[in-house]
Amino acid sequence: MYLQQSINFETRARATHDITRSVCRVVSGSGVDTGLCHLFLRHTSASLIVCENADPVVREDLERFMVSVCPDGDPMFRHTAEGPDDMPAHVRNVLTQTELTLPVAGGRCELGTWQGIYLWEHRTAPHRRTVIVTVHGNGRDA
Amino acid sequence: MYLQQSINFETRARATHDITRSVCRVVSGSGVDTGLCHLFLRHTSASLIVCENADPVVREDLERFMVSVCPDGDPMFRHTAEGPDDMPAHVRNVLTQTELTLPVAGGRCELGTWQGIYLWEHRTAPHRRTVIVTVHGNGRDA
Amino acid sequence: MYLQQSINFETRARATHDITRSVCRVVSGSGVDTGLCHLFLRHTSASLIVCENADPVVREDLERFMVSVCPDGDPMFRHTAEGPDDMPAHVRNVLTQTELTLPVAGGRCELGTWQGIYLWEHRTAPHRRTVIVTVHGNGRDA
Repeated sequence: MYLQQSINFETRARATHDITRSVCRVVSGSGVDTGLCHLFLRHTSASLIVCENADPVVREDLERFMVSVCPDGDPMFRHTAEGPDDMPAHVRNVLTQTELTLPVAGGRCELGTWQGIYLWEHRTAPHRRTVIVTVHGNGRDA
Repeated sequence: MYLQQSINFETRARATHDITRSVCRVVSGSGVDTGLCHLFLRHTSASLIVCENADPVVREDLERFMVSVCPDGDPMFRHTAEGPDDMPAHVRNVLTQTELTLPVAGGRCELGTWQGIYLWEHRTAPHRRTVIVTVHGNGRDA
Repeated sequence: MYLQQSINFETRARATHDITRSVCRVVSGSGVDTGLCHLFLRHTSASLIVCENADPVVREDLERFMVSVCPDGDPMFRHTAEGPDDMPAHVRNVLTQTELTLPVAGGRCELGTWQGIYLWEHRTAPHRRTVIVTVHGNGRDA
């Protein structure tokens, strides 16, 4: 069985946004017992990552790392149509993930204890972001 | 239902090659209505990425970024059997993607408006590259 | 059909560990003929990568590359609870993969000739790591 659904998120600024609960809710409601959950972000200036979920400083350090390897306004970049954070957002997207697949077991999203799912906004301004969730597998009655 | 097919691409040089149309054609012809399309590149010195499809300068800037973080002929590298672009090609592959999964909805590849699928050749010489496409989901008659 | 199984690996130190054989054994035993094999690592300080399998120096060079872009003990990092390799391990995870999907064809994992599957331990101490393998597709009798 395949179930597909879109979820919209309003990001506030460049930062990681925890979407674990929204994703797990779709999985629980899907009727799939054993299978997979696929997430696809329909944008090229944000990312989907699985990341440590206990200490928020980890995600602040990830931010600092990205700024250090790909600073806004780097004169190397020529695609600057939407400002100094435009091209760095595309680079960060390519260095991380646009899509993720997660295991579903016993009707639940089977993450490790210290794993959360994050939508990482790379633009400095707020954006509306759409994630297409596709859950597939053996149903609970199978 | 699962449909699997290989597509071969002849790359001309180190650059991104738009393969969106080839992939979408396989999806349209698969008979799958709602599901997923998986792409697997059988090589370790090229990549598959989803990237901005409107301004070609974005992909030129990605190229400049990769050259800046991992220049050809870096004396740090010891695996130089196939030349100065050999090891940087493997690094670029590991920093990006070897495989991608895309949602299929209404019998079509459901990319965002500004997303294209690119085969990124990291070697400076032309190469023949094979992508295995696997489309699966509910059929149109289901 | 969907088959799911966990495999545990004991890593010895920061290094790549070849898990190709373990993964291929699960695929061969699954009864799936044409489909996909998904691997999910339940940790945020190690990675799963597809990499060149012929010359071990490639993976040593990858290690050198990562040390050069994200050195242990970088004063930029504030999350240092578990030591100087703690935050670099999370960065390396985000720059590479937590999960991989591989094609299954003719009942076998369809890697390219020069591709192997590696569990990359990013912590300097040994760790026990769990990978959830989900194989799905058309069965051999279908």
